[in-house]
Amino acid sequence: MTKLWNATPAGEPPGPTARTELRRHPERGSHDRAVIDAILDEAPICHVGFAGPGGQPYVVPTIHARVGDVLYLHGSPASRALRTLGAGVPACVTATILDGLVLARSAFNHSMNYRSVMVLGTMTPVEDPAEKDAAFRAIVEHVAAGRSLEARMPSPEESRKTLVVRIPVEEASAKLRTGPPKDDPEDMALPVWAGVLPLRLVALAPEPDPSLDLPLPVPPSVLGYGPARGSVGG
Amino acid sequence: MTKLWNATPAGEPPGPTARTELRRHPERGSHDRAVIDAILDEAPICHVGFAGPGGQPYVVPTIHARVGDVLYLHGSPASRALRTLGAGVPACVTATILDGLVLARSAFNHSMNYRSVMVLGTMTPVEDPAEKDAAFRAIVEHVAAGRSLEARMPSPEESRKTLVVRIPVEEASAKLRTGPPKDDPEDMALPVWAGVLPLRLVALAPEPDPSLDLPLPVPPSVLGYGPARGSVGG
Repeated sequence: MTKLWNATPAGEPPGPTARTELRRHPERGSHDRAVIDAILDEAPICHVGFAGPGGQPYVVPTIHARVGDVLYLHGSPASRALRTLGAGVPACVTATILDGLVLARSAFNHSMNYRSVMVLGTMTPVEDPAEKDAAFRAIVEHVAAGRSLEARMPSPEESRKTLVVRIPVEEASAKLRTGPPKDDPEDMALPVWAGVLPLRLVALAPEPDPSLDLPLPVPPSVLGYGPARGSVGG
Repeated sequence: MTKLWNATPAGEPPGPTARTELRRHPERGSHDRAVIDAILDEAPICHVGFAGPGGQPYVVPTIHARVGDVLYLHGSPASRALRTLGAGVPACVTATILDGLVLARSAFNHSMNYRSVMVLGTMTPVEDPAEKDAAFRAIVEHVAAGRSLEARMPSPEESRKTLVVRIPVEEASAKLRTGPPKDDPEDMALPVWAGVLPLRLVALAPEPDPSLDLPLPVPPSVLGYGPARGSVGG
């Protein structure tokens, strides 16, 4: 059937541990930091998982940004998820880019082409104002490269009203699939079209805010929007 | 800052419970099944969260399909995630569609336009062969509507080699944001372009499998690919 990620938890580089090991399709896995960083930087959003009361897992979509070896998330201190994460709990951040449908001759060998990163660890709140400011800037740059030079950056009050949490990019792994379908030999002669349908997240024409009275040109962050979103600190 | 989902766990319809209540931005929330179903059916993949050994959360991208009131996931029985899910554990399935960047005059009011659904509950393995077959068909249709009429469907052996798990679409909620940015009154006169940059997942030209010897036309499942992916059972 249409396999995507056959469930390989992330890992501590360099060698595999129990929660590290790329067991299913190890050929699709990587602990290479350059691969991991590129995926984290390109994925516009991630999904963060954590346990709520009674052990119930929650998975919440959110914006992330990487600065060097640290991944930042943020949100309102009134948010239950952010408060839970800020209390320093085990978490998993997964960022996935869908690259295409893999249509095989058999349903069983259908798949997706994708690039995904899983970061395991413990979230901690960011208290240092300078680190918090740098995280804000990185998050805005992650949304649209160059935007931190255009928008009004947070006031001290807005900074206090935002909870920022960090998780190290240490126990992390990437998993990806590329290329054409792989059918079983006995299916190769079936009269069934097989191939890849590439998918891309593309930007359409910008829609100016109706309340924008000033004759402002569309700025570089919007004109230049592309998959190479802002990354900070290499 | 660039808020996305301010962390509202899903809920049991019709009324809010402790893990149901849409607390942050309740105006963005919905327990409407038509809204929930439409998002689940359009999102090409989801992220499923569950607790591994020691309570460590894992978040894994995977393909899903809805059949009426049930959401199906599948994978290899050799996969740790699928085996864990098949043992009947609490899980959270979150499907998110990113619709655009919301660029405000202030960094603080940046946001994303998105539609997201969270389904809470317990996974159970699907044993009944007829239900398993229906789930296979739904998953293939979810990937590309019409594809179950084109591809060779699973043999009994392939069916045995696939683990299918189900979660009811009961304790579920949707959260979405649409429309232009909302800046604070004191920022409205700032000379900063504001607006929405719409994002869409689009299909590029299909890439036939290089080993495709037969002169087969590109099939309807590929030609007709669009956001209205197959849904089964209304």
